[in-house]
Amino acid sequence: MSPTPNARVLFNKVPEGFPGPETTLYDTSQTIDLEHVSLQGGFLVKILALSIEPYLRFLMDKDGFKDVMPSFVLGEPLWGPGVGVVVRSEHDGVKEGEHVAGMVPHQEYTIQKDLSMVKVIENKPNLPWSVYLGALGVPGKTAYYAWKEYAHPKRGETVYISGAASAVGSFVVQLAKMDGLRVIASAGSEEKVKYLQLLGADVAFNYRTEDVEKVLERDGPIDIYWDNVGGATLDAALVAANRHARFIECGMISAYNTGAVVKNMVLVFKKGITLYGFLVLDLEPKYESEFYQVVPELIRSGKIRFKEEVFEGLDKVGEAITEVQRGESTGKVVVKISD
Amino acid sequence: MSPTPNARVLFNKVPEGFPGPETTLYDTSQTIDLEHVSLQGGFLVKILALSIEPYLRFLMDKDGFKDVMPSFVLGEPLWGPGVGVVVRSEHDGVKEGEHVAGMVPHQEYTIQKDLSMVKVIENKPNLPWSVYLGALGVPGKTAYYAWKEYAHPKRGETVYISGAASAVGSFVVQLAKMDGLRVIASAGSEEKVKYLQLLGADVAFNYRTEDVEKVLERDGPIDIYWDNVGGATLDAALVAANRHARFIECGMISAYNTGAVVKNMVLVFKKGITLYGFLVLDLEPKYESEFYQVVPELIRSGKIRFKEEVFEGLDKVGEAITEVQRGESTGKVVVKISD
Repeated sequence: MSPTPNARVLFNKVPEGFPGPETTLYDTSQTIDLEHVSLQGGFLVKILALSIEPYLRFLMDKDGFKDVMPSFVLGEPLWGPGVGVVVRSEHDGVKEGEHVAGMVPHQEYTIQKDLSMVKVIENKPNLPWSVYLGALGVPGKTAYYAWKEYAHPKRGETVYISGAASAVGSFVVQLAKMDGLRVIASAGSEEKVKYLQLLGADVAFNYRTEDVEKVLERDGPIDIYWDNVGGATLDAALVAANRHARFIECGMISAYNTGAVVKNMVLVFKKGITLYGFLVLDLEPKYESEFYQVVPELIRSGKIRFKEEVFEGLDKVGEAITEVQRGESTGKVVVKISD
Repeated sequence: MSPTPNARVLFNKVPEGFPGPETTLYDTSQTIDLEHVSLQGGFLVKILALSIEPYLRFLMDKDGFKDVMPSFVLGEPLWGPGVGVVVRSEHDGVKEGEHVAGMVPHQEYTIQKDLSMVKVIENKPNLPWSVYLGALGVPGKTAYYAWKEYAHPKRGETVYISGAASAVGSFVVQLAKMDGLRVIASAGSEEKVKYLQLLGADVAFNYRTEDVEKVLERDGPIDIYWDNVGGATLDAALVAANRHARFIECGMISAYNTGAVVKNMVLVFKKGITLYGFLVLDLEPKYESEFYQVVPELIRSGKIRFKEEVFEGLDKVGEAITEVQRGESTGKVVVKISD
């Protein structure tokens, strides 16, 4: 069998502010011999889909996610969560035809030497494989683990969720409704607002046309804030917070590309608020098995709904990253490479 | 017996920025008849000393400490923590000659209708009464309760304490040393730095002459940050924080008079930091009895040391408030009215 193309997406230029087309380079210069390439005890994976996470932006800066993940290297492939199928294996723990999910380079084929970066997935509920990048992947785990760990919800309380149409945000909207909370949710378009209403948000609004502080003054106060945005949105949530509010600091998209100042931190102390910064990997040992017991069935039965925005083809990675950073996407942004 | 003067300190003008001489008015127009004034079942207290707390600044703004304490009223006396001796009592719970501590108006004599605002203090270790405004009062409780609740110290970890020469800060320095931590402490003068060294701080520095971020880069990283300052100091602590650092948000003196922005909040999420805002009254039910069992003996034996800065005379309240807000004081600032 002749060599097969193995296209890659390389890190081309450190962006200033928002990443643009020059940040990444789609490279088709390499090939791979699928039958004969040496696996050295590992396994060969054909990547089916990649997840475009907001935090990929950190990996573009030197020490951008220090002590958590190494940054991208100029001239080398980007990497992030992906799902794939095993083409050939010399590893006892994984067989040809099985699916794996985990951290993979942004390329069509990858050789993994062991199961440290990816895990075999069973997919008992027979869902599309890309779900393992969204509702059953890092975003779903982020939502579920942190809600269980930090929200301490009491029926009848009010939660505000920013970035609520994202993969994580939309999951949290639904968890909060299941717990009997009043949900205020914001996103950046009328279409997203409609989606949030569909998911059950009691108050859904477009932060580009309505002032967050005014909406929260009218529809608050709030007991829980799920923060995907930071900056001025965090400031507004601090103003609207009740005493002893819990702030779950899941992300701060407003700060990744332009920086974002917070002016009302004094309210943290005055109101006795706790802000929980966390990374999903911190909570994995405590919640992973519960998650896989509970969430696949919630998804199969339609109790947790999710949306995917699919970019077709590996060459669309750069475009997808820019859209995620600009907050223009809805649900889980996935780059599909193969069926 | 002829009427006795009952001088008061009135709230005279809402300050913009730092409170100045015009903020308060020392008023000697009133008198009180100590023998005959009607107590209506309550008790008459001669106030011995007042504590000048940083949070008094909040009470100068409308809703400045909303849901916690009412603000000062123009033309009426200020109020805050104080200690006094009972002159006459019609109340079953308190006798003439006993000492009380709690929230009192800034005046020489006050009639309390019940024990809701003040409590009888026993003073078994026979300490100066003003200690019940400092190491055995709100500052001591603040330090002890929050350290026990939020610090989760592990021997060998590093803590940074800002505003470390204050009544709360200096108490925390000593608690941290008892727990086997490495202590970095900052304050605003060479004299204070010497005091911090005397208390056992491993690294003590003057933030007016040394850059906080540089010191923490050299002597950090830090696992715990005790924040009395906020603003740029909080930003520097975020940069120097290890993953899973605990930030105890005790106060933000930099923000009370001039406002203070925080630019590095994104690190809360990236590093999985938790910020605990709290008020001492939230923790009182859990720790009060332990505090009175443990701390008086620590003080009597000299294991916890403290300093007082005494302003002599009720007419010095305004001056004392300004000094506290400008961060020029060391230890507990007390206005002494009578012996």
